[in-house]
Amino acid sequence: MTTTAQQTEPEETHDEIERRLDAATVATADWGQQPPKQRAEALSAIADALDAESATLIAEAVRESGLPEGRLTGELKRTSVQLRMFADELRDGSYLRIALDRHDPDFVLGNRPDLRRWSTPIGPVLVYAASNFPFAFSVAGGDTASALAAGCPVVLKAHPGHPETSRKTAEIVRSALAASGAPEGTFAMITGREAGVRALRDPRIAAGAFTGSVAGGRALFDIAVSRPTPIPFYGELGSINPAVVTSGAERERGEQVAAGFVGSFTLGAGQFCTKPGTLLLPRGTALPSRIAELAGDVAPARMLTSGIAERYRERTEELASAPGIEVLVRGAEHDDPSGVPAVTPTVLHAGSVENLLNSPALLEENFGPCAVIAEYGSDDELHSALAAVEGTLTVTAHTAQDPDEDERRRLGRLVPLAAARSGRLVFDEWPTGVAVTPAQQHGGPYPATTAVSHTSVGTAAIDRFLRPVSYQNAPDFLLPDALHESNPLGLPRTTHEAGSSRRWDAPRK
Amino acid sequence: MTTTAQQTEPEETHDEIERRLDAATVATADWGQQPPKQRAEALSAIADALDAESATLIAEAVRESGLPEGRLTGELKRTSVQLRMFADELRDGSYLRIALDRHDPDFVLGNRPDLRRWSTPIGPVLVYAASNFPFAFSVAGGDTASALAAGCPVVLKAHPGHPETSRKTAEIVRSALAASGAPEGTFAMITGREAGVRALRDPRIAAGAFTGSVAGGRALFDIAVSRPTPIPFYGELGSINPAVVTSGAERERGEQVAAGFVGSFTLGAGQFCTKPGTLLLPRGTALPSRIAELAGDVAPARMLTSGIAERYRERTEELASAPGIEVLVRGAEHDDPSGVPAVTPTVLHAGSVENLLNSPALLEENFGPCAVIAEYGSDDELHSALAAVEGTLTVTAHTAQDPDEDERRRLGRLVPLAAARSGRLVFDEWPTGVAVTPAQQHGGPYPATTAVSHTSVGTAAIDRFLRPVSYQNAPDFLLPDALHESNPLGLPRTTHEAGSSRRWDAPRK
Repeated sequence: MTTTAQQTEPEETHDEIERRLDAATVATADWGQQPPKQRAEALSAIADALDAESATLIAEAVRESGLPEGRLTGELKRTSVQLRMFADELRDGSYLRIALDRHDPDFVLGNRPDLRRWSTPIGPVLVYAASNFPFAFSVAGGDTASALAAGCPVVLKAHPGHPETSRKTAEIVRSALAASGAPEGTFAMITGREAGVRALRDPRIAAGAFTGSVAGGRALFDIAVSRPTPIPFYGELGSINPAVVTSGAERERGEQVAAGFVGSFTLGAGQFCTKPGTLLLPRGTALPSRIAELAGDVAPARMLTSGIAERYRERTEELASAPGIEVLVRGAEHDDPSGVPAVTPTVLHAGSVENLLNSPALLEENFGPCAVIAEYGSDDELHSALAAVEGTLTVTAHTAQDPDEDERRRLGRLVPLAAARSGRLVFDEWPTGVAVTPAQQHGGPYPATTAVSHTSVGTAAIDRFLRPVSYQNAPDFLLPDALHESNPLGLPRTTHEAGSSRRWDAPRK
Repeated sequence: MTTTAQQTEPEETHDEIERRLDAATVATADWGQQPPKQRAEALSAIADALDAESATLIAEAVRESGLPEGRLTGELKRTSVQLRMFADELRDGSYLRIALDRHDPDFVLGNRPDLRRWSTPIGPVLVYAASNFPFAFSVAGGDTASALAAGCPVVLKAHPGHPETSRKTAEIVRSALAASGAPEGTFAMITGREAGVRALRDPRIAAGAFTGSVAGGRALFDIAVSRPTPIPFYGELGSINPAVVTSGAERERGEQVAAGFVGSFTLGAGQFCTKPGTLLLPRGTALPSRIAELAGDVAPARMLTSGIAERYRERTEELASAPGIEVLVRGAEHDDPSGVPAVTPTVLHAGSVENLLNSPALLEENFGPCAVIAEYGSDDELHSALAAVEGTLTVTAHTAQDPDEDERRRLGRLVPLAAARSGRLVFDEWPTGVAVTPAQQHGGPYPATTAVSHTSVGTAAIDRFLRPVSYQNAPDFLLPDALHESNPLGLPRTTHEAGSSRRWDAPRK
């Protein structure tokens, strides 16, 4: 949701949007009814095609985003790895959560019919690409991969921050899908802010997925839920990601903690949804001045777009002028050949927790390389700081490696408070760098996300785009292959036999 | 959402609501952190207590709802059975969907941390009881059972249609929970329409669950999603539940189909969310007149409340006066000692599918014993009728027992269209009577529900009240017991070893 970018974003015409939504609708049945293993081949083909074009894609993304080549190389690899990971989920088939109830005339509540439940695609998904991940949360990113894996056609609203990277990626996705036999309309890209809103209001769209700002994401969420037919909207919005350092950790390895923190909040110019924005330190240590020293040495880094840079400047000035704030490091803006400013980090010290809590803006995401430090004098103060944090993607704790009984007891009280506010608790590491794995949870209570029960990273992200359908007393020839008595697709399923025993059939590889 | 009932519904005071929400908040940690097997004991204790008081409860419900004793006996049994079914889910533990990623320094995307994901309770849930199920969708019904099972305290908004039944049930639930060691505040009941709205707006409430009308449910959904912090709202609203009869089925067993249909749409005076409201018949059969004869013989049945009866009268008059409607059977209202009218069924004949589609109101739920018949002259007409149906809980098809090649082919086209609009496809049975089983899906696209990916009946209903949390690189002593390395609770979990192999540990009984 950037100002400059909005001005230059070309708007799709009404007819073009209509054509793409029509094509997505037509593709719904065909793509969704393909056996999971066939869709897996298509996803793998996209991954292979992205890898094959990596040099071109990375060069374009470096030019448009200003992110370093090394970072973008890793990000593109993550993009193809997560496509293959979803392909593996499709080959495994557990994601369908197939359950069979056998007909049971003696069921405790009377005659129980044969019931067979599986998961079907929700329908065409509108995915909004993010500014800060030109690959992994953009055209062929996690939302697209999980929606396609679920069997949903994707209409991708491109982010104006990297238009050529988007266009090239979309072309690769389309070609790979076509070569894999996917129907025309399985994937389409649209551009333009108004186009993105119009598509969200369209009855042909069955779900939305978004990664971006609280303001932009909430506006889209409001549209999605106020339609005549409301639809699920999976928004990943803003997160403050507080980090706590115990006195044990400070004594044991203060230098390492300071360096780790500065590395994490300045990574990618602080433009990660998991950037630790608030650091809660025990009162009276040398950590604030050490962090200031290290942050003062960080080289300027280009912001993603002029709009993001402008918003960051305004927000940082607002925070720096909050009552009782000491500016430990005042970041500077530098010219960059791209025309988008490069910035150095800002470190603000709020003093006490009490002062931190006096200005709620200090606990709201500021997208860029700015961090706010506060010092707690007691566990009660620390707990009240955490209680004031809104829903957040992560909470981080740095603790002593071999904590004494007192620290163990205190941590035992802290952890449940942290778990109540976030989707991921990180210990003795930093929250930036989100592993793309089955046990990942990239989500959390609002405003971290608009859908607290879901994740947008990791294989469980596929659940967002599925809905269950049960078949009662169906003749075998009318069942989808996945539910046939003979299990021709070799899918894992749980069978509830008459008399209530339960059997689990593992997937046949 | 009934008129008469609203007038007599006593409103909870502001202080009483505050006290109950506070108590629910306080109970959240304790109830949610109990080992699943301990919560299972509490759920079983509620079931036992309900069974022990069944005579009193059923007598009260008969008096208040006018439903027959046999029906209420079965419904109370269903209520205790589903509490025990959720208890079994808790003992099994699969619902937690525990996933472990082992630390893998050689992971394809670089060093992968130890990550452990499980499901935690979403927080205090506000459950709105339904009018038409004084037990199974009321105080101790499916929404309450699944929320308590998930570890969420429940604040129950009573339905004014059966206040004494509600009060007695709530007292049983509270006593059983207290005797099982559940914290005070795990369950509370509130009364009053305004109280129900105020509680939904309260930031301490983390999710809502509702079964009722489209108008009432949408109004509450709109409140839930427009809060400063929006919350999930699981509404089960209105459903037309179309039923299709093929010419093969008509030839083979027309009489049985006619009798089955009349039995289904008049069951419980047509006050089921799965009542088949529209019947699509092949053109030119004797079924309409046979259905009219059978429906004309159905005895008057008392409506649940005066408000529901009034709304039903208005809606039925509206439908009967739609263009081209022939009234095959005009229902009558009879006085009942309760003061709430008893009614006989109404059967409307829309003639052709074309005429049915001319009046969209004919395809919207009319809560009561009214059905609309239309005759299709071709598969195209049948498909266009289904395409005009909004999201629905069920679609029913009566087909030939041994269909010829032509009927098979035609059904093969029909079934995917039906699956696209509903949560459950029923073959050669009727949609009323919802089995409470693991493979059940009681849900569907809007307006059938406000949360298409979920079910409100069956064990999967617990998913609505869970949210995942991952622990990254956590020392064992800070992990919840469920995620400890030694698996002290014996819970099933999927482990992703370094190098990508996957292992599933079955639950230890």
